[in-house]
Amino acid sequence: MHVLIIGAAGMIGRKLAERIAATGALGGKPVNAMTLADIAEPQVAPDFSGTRTALAADLTDPGTADSLIADRPDVIVHVAAIVSGEAEADFDKGYSINLDGTRALFDAIRAIDGYTPRVIYASSLAVFGAPFPPKIPDDYHLTPLTSYGTQKAIGELLLNDYSRRGFLDGVGIRFPTICIRPGKPNKAASSFYSGILREPLNGQEAVLPVGTDVRHWFASPRSAVGYIDHAATLDTTQLGAQRNMTMPGVSATVGDQIEALRAVAGNEAVALIRHEPDPMVSAIISGWPRDFVTARACDLGFRAEENFRQIIEVYLEDEMG
Amino acid sequence: MHVLIIGAAGMIGRKLAERIAATGALGGKPVNAMTLADIAEPQVAPDFSGTRTALAADLTDPGTADSLIADRPDVIVHVAAIVSGEAEADFDKGYSINLDGTRALFDAIRAIDGYTPRVIYASSLAVFGAPFPPKIPDDYHLTPLTSYGTQKAIGELLLNDYSRRGFLDGVGIRFPTICIRPGKPNKAASSFYSGILREPLNGQEAVLPVGTDVRHWFASPRSAVGYIDHAATLDTTQLGAQRNMTMPGVSATVGDQIEALRAVAGNEAVALIRHEPDPMVSAIISGWPRDFVTARACDLGFRAEENFRQIIEVYLEDEMG
Repeated sequence: MHVLIIGAAGMIGRKLAERIAATGALGGKPVNAMTLADIAEPQVAPDFSGTRTALAADLTDPGTADSLIADRPDVIVHVAAIVSGEAEADFDKGYSINLDGTRALFDAIRAIDGYTPRVIYASSLAVFGAPFPPKIPDDYHLTPLTSYGTQKAIGELLLNDYSRRGFLDGVGIRFPTICIRPGKPNKAASSFYSGILREPLNGQEAVLPVGTDVRHWFASPRSAVGYIDHAATLDTTQLGAQRNMTMPGVSATVGDQIEALRAVAGNEAVALIRHEPDPMVSAIISGWPRDFVTARACDLGFRAEENFRQIIEVYLEDEMG
Repeated sequence: MHVLIIGAAGMIGRKLAERIAATGALGGKPVNAMTLADIAEPQVAPDFSGTRTALAADLTDPGTADSLIADRPDVIVHVAAIVSGEAEADFDKGYSINLDGTRALFDAIRAIDGYTPRVIYASSLAVFGAPFPPKIPDDYHLTPLTSYGTQKAIGELLLNDYSRRGFLDGVGIRFPTICIRPGKPNKAASSFYSGILREPLNGQEAVLPVGTDVRHWFASPRSAVGYIDHAATLDTTQLGAQRNMTMPGVSATVGDQIEALRAVAGNEAVALIRHEPDPMVSAIISGWPRDFVTARACDLGFRAEENFRQIIEVYLEDEMG
């Protein structure tokens, strides 16, 4: 099987490539070729036994999508995107990469007769917008309140239509907020969700800008890669016309996160969290979903952690050895 | 007020132009200029006292959207579209006109600093897809099952995002099936809904291809124009982030239609309806919505007929004098 990862330099793309390199498989099938593409040439894991290509590619450049699929990859993982904050700050850039880039990829696939690859499309909880019910059901309407969420919702609609017409075989994955992200804090409003755990686990202070009763939807980086692994060989006849799904996750409050940290790393770790309320972060976070019913994805075999302690343990195993 | 109608040669666009010409107003405000655009130059009603321009324009031609709005129309009515059947038969044409054309218009508006016209966008019940609840609520999820419905749903998302960003001031109108359409039968699967009334009212035979228990959602051409009239000067601060609404209408079975015809035109008219079951039409129609709750649009003052007899009476008044 030949796997193409577009957005391979991002956290999920990189971890997916590492997993394929380590296991030699995706969705239980052997992978003999891997193409890794991103705006800048992605680094490649050193221990893959198959053919591996890494290249710099911008889907919005004419011809780029065609050349990426020239070798007819069997599975295309499309995790390239301008993130929420940047898509809001730069309207043209967000629509160009997130909408036009996605459509260029889908149209390049459509242009090849008899080629119907599995396309795994990274969507987002940002397709939903407040007001929310306490638990958001699988058939909740898409009312994005950001340009990023709008672009992701449009991509979902295109994935459905191109799949229905038989041009590609799509699975759309709405990722939970991924936690604990390895590495440094960033400027995303969600950064503290990882920071208040990652920094104390590494003996460093962390700032908590919101109250402990704030609730949100999480899964580990390992689960994120697991969704893609499962989607790669899923029997899509089970999906009908609706190819996009909210992925299972853990609904947890900041208080739940802190108690899980205490259970794993003790009071000293928790003492490193400094509460510094930030009204702007609180305002952004208040528009985010808190909990989901994900019966559809669960019935189809998608899995995540069952509680926040497991999410922390994944970090300890995968990032701290 | 200057009104631009894009798609002015279509049934709704033409009737809207006629109404503006006859009343000199839209949404209760005087109209002193009207620009009528369509793929072919639209005919113009003869009795308008203001400035009137008619022109052939294709929104997908570069620069066309910019030139259409060069005079900064206050209200833009966008009812130009490739219809459902053609968008399904010609994938590229449907996406080009219905998606790219709409985006070209929105982007041309966005490019003008300080210009935020009211944009009335024609959407469709085709944004919904089976399975349906008996009555579809205002917050039902959009699951189109055609390329046309997909394109209209994407237009709705863009209208919301461009409005939220302050680039335009959008109102999206999901039209019921318009009945009784004047003129000749066409090849649309929905053609018989008008035909079984229009032909008998004109002393001609009509074919009914489905059973009398089939239920659907209707309004008259006069109501269709009325929605646009109301949307033109609606206070959009009431809409929040969700600019698109299903319009009020009449939920009626084919049997209800026939009994309304009998009440208005007698048994002789009904006797002109010949039942010739067509399994293909039945199959298409079975995927269409039957009934809606339209509390949101009704609360905002949008109105339609209250029963099917009124819909027939509108035809008699407006088309048969």
